[in-house]
Parts: sequence; structure tokens; C-alpha cells
Amino acid sequence: MRQAGRYMKSYQVICEKYPSFRERSENVDLVVEISLQPWKVFKPDGVILFSDILTPLSGMNIPFDIVKGKGPVIFDPIHTAGQVDQVREFIPEDSVPYVGEALTILRKEVDNKAAVLGFVGAPFTLASYVVEGGSSKHFSKIKRLAFSEPKILHSLLQKFTTSMARYIQYQADNGAQAVQIFDSWATELSPVDFEQFSLPYLKQIIDTVKKSHPELPLILYASGSGGLLERIALTGVDVVSLDWTVDMADGRRRLGPNIAVQGNVDPGVLFGSRELITDRIYDTVRKAGRGKHILNLGHGIVVGTPEENVAHFFEVAKGIRY
Amino acid sequence: MRQAGRYMKSYQVICEKYPSFRERSENVDLVVEISLQPWKVFKPDGVILFSDILTPLSGMNIPFDIVKGKGPVIFDPIHTAGQVDQVREFIPEDSVPYVGEALTILRKEVDNKAAVLGFVGAPFTLASYVVEGGSSKHFSKIKRLAFSEPKILHSLLQKFTTSMARYIQYQADNGAQAVQIFDSWATELSPVDFEQFSLPYLKQIIDTVKKSHPELPLILYASGSGGLLERIALTGVDVVSLDWTVDMADGRRRLGPNIAVQGNVDPGVLFGSRELITDRIYDTVRKAGRGKHILNLGHGIVVGTPEENVAHFFEVAKGIRY
Repeated sequence: MRQAGRYMKSYQVICEKYPSFRERSENVDLVVEISLQPWKVFKPDGVILFSDILTPLSGMNIPFDIVKGKGPVIFDPIHTAGQVDQVREFIPEDSVPYVGEALTILRKEVDNKAAVLGFVGAPFTLASYVVEGGSSKHFSKIKRLAFSEPKILHSLLQKFTTSMARYIQYQADNGAQAVQIFDSWATELSPVDFEQFSLPYLKQIIDTVKKSHPELPLILYASGSGGLLERIALTGVDVVSLDWTVDMADGRRRLGPNIAVQGNVDPGVLFGSRELITDRIYDTVRKAGRGKHILNLGHGIVVGTPEENVAHFFEVAKGIRY
Repeated sequence: MRQAGRYMKSYQVICEKYPSFRERSENVDLVVEISLQPWKVFKPDGVILFSDILTPLSGMNIPFDIVKGKGPVIFDPIHTAGQVDQVREFIPEDSVPYVGEALTILRKEVDNKAAVLGFVGAPFTLASYVVEGGSSKHFSKIKRLAFSEPKILHSLLQKFTTSMARYIQYQADNGAQAVQIFDSWATELSPVDFEQFSLPYLKQIIDTVKKSHPELPLILYASGSGGLLERIALTGVDVVSLDWTVDMADGRRRLGPNIAVQGNVDPGVLFGSRELITDRIYDTVRKAGRGKHILNLGHGIVVGTPEENVAHFFEVAKGIRY
């Protein structure tokens, strides 16, 4: 369950005191405190670094902010070859030392009672923010670039690829025990374009990291991936995180037996009755079968979700016996 | 290509003169004029009634408006059994006579040079607007209802089902030669919930209409349906309209040989080069194979799309020889 604790009152209290998202996500003490909030209350098996997929951008010479109520804002959206040339490759040690420090502290605090998880954005998803200038509805700017000047987009994607492979290695070296790659917007592409603008870069990242860190589990998430599962299996990733729009039984079958699955209870279920939440957890677990399954929601918890229903989810999950 | 001409300058001119969407969509002369705009310029094989899936709501005692820049607004969102009781079943003859009149005129104007197409919203999609109060990001209100008081939602869905079956019959009786059912938001449901809150109602509509109008082709559209295709095939619909997130070859295979397909070029492709547009049309047509395919975009044309690229799409499409 990513988006560490945004639905929690304790997080809202920190937000009032530190209204800047960038400050909350770039100050070691705050990162550690926020990362631990859901763990302290619910004791899940994983603790997720509080950060954002866009955090590396300023270290790549792409100034940005995350504005409350609006989302990410890229101050100077990238559309030209000249702008891509200005993008620096990411050196995490120099640009985001607070991430490494926070991961190291989290490992100590959690003391092997849970896994500490890092994450990065996938090249296409990062590029979509950077080209669109922020969140987008139709992704028409990045599609204009992809479909009229593909070379410019490919060179931007390559910079993100090299940088994110390095960022995963850095997170692992500093304590992350698994890293999730978010290609949230890959599914805005048709499968034939996914094969051009996302898949090869995901493969490159995974191949690179597997060489240096063969034991590090890599997880891949894409929203609404029902049209892409067989292609996602080709990335070589260890775990595919499914959102709730794919039935877990279908996901298992379509991904094949070698890939583990994560997910995929609809976060909307947490607005329902306790009984229904219990039913859906068991349905998901039964469909995933024994082993190779990380029980989770299919996406982040929606703000407004009753915290007691989140607690119920964990209670039921912990009571499952195979 | 639905959303008749919203990207066209000639439509923007009408919008300036008649800024109310409801006026434009409820005045016979305007409906006819707007419906014919794309046909006059591009001569496609189909002319789509200018309307909205929410048009029936006021006739069902659910007051609403469509506000520029904001989208649909339901003045009194429905959450209780008492409110559902107040929903009237839809009598198109009484509530939307302008729809029947417009369809009749369109048939005459088009004079069998193209098919005249009607459309309706599917029960779950209509319910999602009515419960959420408009567009939604997380659909948490309708999910709260579905997952804690399913009976209330089911009775609302049944009212929409009876009403929309009747509305399709009315459209056909007044000249529509095919009718598309938009279940745009069905894919916000997990497949297990689609089976409860959408599929049975779609089947009921299709069964009812097939009895009275066995020759009327019915088309079903759901956005991002890659997780649902096999279940959508169970509705008994004649044609499935695929958006671009499913590869046409995969769609064909997963839907089986008896269902025709519509779509599914990414509307974002129209922001690309002419060459690329041509390539993607041929790729789609080749994957769909001979027969049982309505070549189309996978979704509405995005506002801002260059009109000359739309023209190019039609030119290439008309030049295809099997």
C-alpha cells in the first residue's frame, strides 16, 4: 500500500506543519517519520520510503514542484532536442543523499520486522510528466512528440533509463530490500507503442539492476494493465503489481507461473462493510493461490477511507492461514 | 468517432452562440446541425446523434446540467432508497421528443449515404454520475453504496436498465440504424463487481431490445476494457468498441469470432505525422482482419487535434481495399 499514510490523520498533522511536499519528502527526519506512520499503526510486512517518483528530477536539472490540489508542476516542460541535452544524468549520492540516509535509518528502525521498500518512476511515466508539464488527461503533448519526433523522446527516455537503473542500485545499496518501478502511465499507450516507448527501457533497467543486484526483487506497477499483461511479462521483472481492474485469477494465468503477483483488492472496497472487505481479501488470496503473492490493494488508499477499515484489512490479512 | 465534432471550429462557433450544452443538445435544429457537421466535412460512413448519455436524466426526475470546464453536475446526488423511489422511469416520447425528431430528420438528410447512429449510457455509468454528483476520480461514493448498501444501488440500476432499453427502442423506432451503449466507467469496477453491478443489466437491456428489434446492431463501449473482454463477450452484444489500450489482434482473439469489433486507433495518433497515422490505420485494419470491423478511433477526438489530420484519417480509411 503505497502513498504512505496520506489518508492518515497523523500525516495530515505533519502536512499542516510542513505544507511543502518537497520539504516533507526531502528532509531525512520527516521522510523517516512519515514512512513509519502506517507501520506503527498497522504493522504491515512492508515499510515504503516516503518519496515521490519525481524526486530525482531536480537532480537531473528539471525544476519542479508538487502543488497541493494541483499535483506536479514542471516549470519548463521539455519538447526539444536542445532541452533534452540539458537534462543531466542522475547521481543519487550527490542529488538525493537524504534518500539513502532515510533508507538506512528505516532499516535500523524496522529491525527486520518488515521489509523496507524503495521505488522509482519508469522512463515513460517520468517523461510524460516532464513533457506534459504535470499531470495530464489526454497525454497529447507526449503523444505529439512520440508520433512526430520519436528521436527526441527516445533520447529523453534513455536518460531516464540510465538514471533510474542507477537510482534503484543506490536505493538497494542503502537498505531497500525490494524496489517497485511505477509505470503508471504506460497504459495510456497502445500496446504497439508500449513496445516502442516503454518496454525496451523497462527491460534495460531490469537487466542492468539484475547484473549488479541479482537478489533484489523488482516489482512493476502499471495502472489498468489488462491490455498489456503478456507484454509486461516480457520485461523480466520478478513481481507484477496488478490493479483491481484485472481479476487476480486472470492475471496469474496471463502472466505465467514464473512471475509473482502483488495486489489487487479494489481500494474502493475499504469504503464498504467489514464483511465485504473480508470476502474480497479471501477471494483475492484464493485466486492468487499459494506462494508468489504479495497481498495488497490494487492502488493507493483513497483519501477519505475510514482508518478503521484499513485496520480491518490488516487484521484479516494477518489471520490468513494456508 | 463520437463526440460529434467537438474539435471542429464550426462547432466552437455554435458553442459561442449557444453556450448552454443542454440547449445545443435539446433543440432539434441545433442537434441536427451539429450532428451533420463532421459528416459534411469528412463524409464518414456514420452520422452520430449529437446528444449526451445524461440527456434522459431530467425526464427521470434527476435534475442536472453540463457546465463548461466542469462537466456534468447532478444537483441532488442519489444515496438513499427514498431518493431512488423518486426516480421516474423514462418515457422518451414525453421527455425527449427532440431526440426522435432529430433522428427522423437526420435519416432524411443523410439519405442512406451513411448510417445514423444513436447511443445511450449503460446503467452503471449513469448511476456513477448520479451517485457521485458528476464526474469522479475515485468513484468512492458509488463504491461506498455498492459495498455497503448494494440493494439501493441495484434498484437504481434496474430503473436505468428498464429506461435505457426503452430509450434504445425509441431511438431505433425514430430512425437510428445502430445504437451504442456507453459503459465508460464499468472498468472502474473489478471484474468480480462488474459481474454484479454491470453485466446483468447490460444483458437485460440487450435481451429486451433483441426481442423487439432483432435486426438492430448494438455496440458496447467501455474504456480500458483489457481486464474485462471475455466478460463483455457474455453480454450478447453484436459489436464491441475497443479503446486503444487493447491491441486489435488481442481483442479479436479474446472476444471470439462471433462478435464484431469497432475501433481502435489511439486518438493521440492524430497529433502525429501523416505517415504515422497511415501506418496505424493499416496496422489496425490488418489486425482486425476481413469483415466484422468498424474502423474507428479508440475514443473521441481530443480537442486540439489538427482538423487536417482528421481529414487524412478519413482519406486513408476510404482508400483501403481488401
